[in-house]
Amino acid sequence: MLTIRHRPIGVIRTPFADPAGCPIQPRFSSAAGVVEVSPRFAAGMRGITQFSHVILVYSFHRTEQELLLARPFLDRARRGIFTIRSPHRPNHIGISVVRLVSRRGTRLRVTGVDMLDRTPLLDIKPYVPGFDSFPRARSGWLNPHLKGRGDAAP
Amino acid sequence: MLTIRHRPIGVIRTPFADPAGCPIQPRFSSAAGVVEVSPRFAAGMRGITQFSHVILVYSFHRTEQELLLARPFLDRARRGIFTIRSPHRPNHIGISVVRLVSRRGTRLRVTGVDMLDRTPLLDIKPYVPGFDSFPRARSGWLNPHLKGRGDAAP
Repeated sequence: MLTIRHRPIGVIRTPFADPAGCPIQPRFSSAAGVVEVSPRFAAGMRGITQFSHVILVYSFHRTEQELLLARPFLDRARRGIFTIRSPHRPNHIGISVVRLVSRRGTRLRVTGVDMLDRTPLLDIKPYVPGFDSFPRARSGWLNPHLKGRGDAAP
Repeated sequence: MLTIRHRPIGVIRTPFADPAGCPIQPRFSSAAGVVEVSPRFAAGMRGITQFSHVILVYSFHRTEQELLLARPFLDRARRGIFTIRSPHRPNHIGISVVRLVSRRGTRLRVTGVDMLDRTPLLDIKPYVPGFDSFPRARSGWLNPHLKGRGDAAP
């Protein structure tokens, strides 16, 4: 199959220099971060502060591992990589929904970051509940770990 | 900045051979599709049918256009590309939440597809309401277009 080349459009700055101590999901993080978009993409950010949340698409840049079965943080069983959110996955693409706090030029202040510092940013999408929110979806092995947490934030 | 290479892990089959007639979002689509994962990734799918919904990460393979401002389908104003879900975006990465109906080997039957036939698949992630559902997020210019639709499906 063909190879698809992606070029980072910016970088995500977070307090997490190392995997140890990095929150496993934005929902469990109150950490603030800054999304630094390259100035050449500035026009693309027009109107972005209308949205309370954005979806960051990024590269898990600190791993080369490509596992098919792995143990998630919340559980000790080995699970299919497509049933967990581990970075050690084919193509190493991550997505996180974060809260957009403010914008200054091409810098976005966000909260709820769960990625490592200097993570290469591939895309920003507006979070739209009508497209992206399925509160009653069934989440398999994760259900018992998330009881009472799903509606907590933000 | 560096270039990141991604290799498709499979292909998404849908009824939509052409952009004309393709639904703009899974929420507005009842169409059935098949996610064909390459057999070498079979182990990664273990347990996936525990989830009612999965997030497909894919490449908008039918466009080379990289716009910073574009007119969305739902509206006539030119808007920042990072505030709309247009395929004509930097890196051409798409994400869609679809309903998982059944699995047979490395083929997943899904509904709610909104991508073109033979779309290259980059990743599958489990949809977890505790991570991904923010029903009260504010969605800016999209709000008036989605009144009464957000809670409809599925």
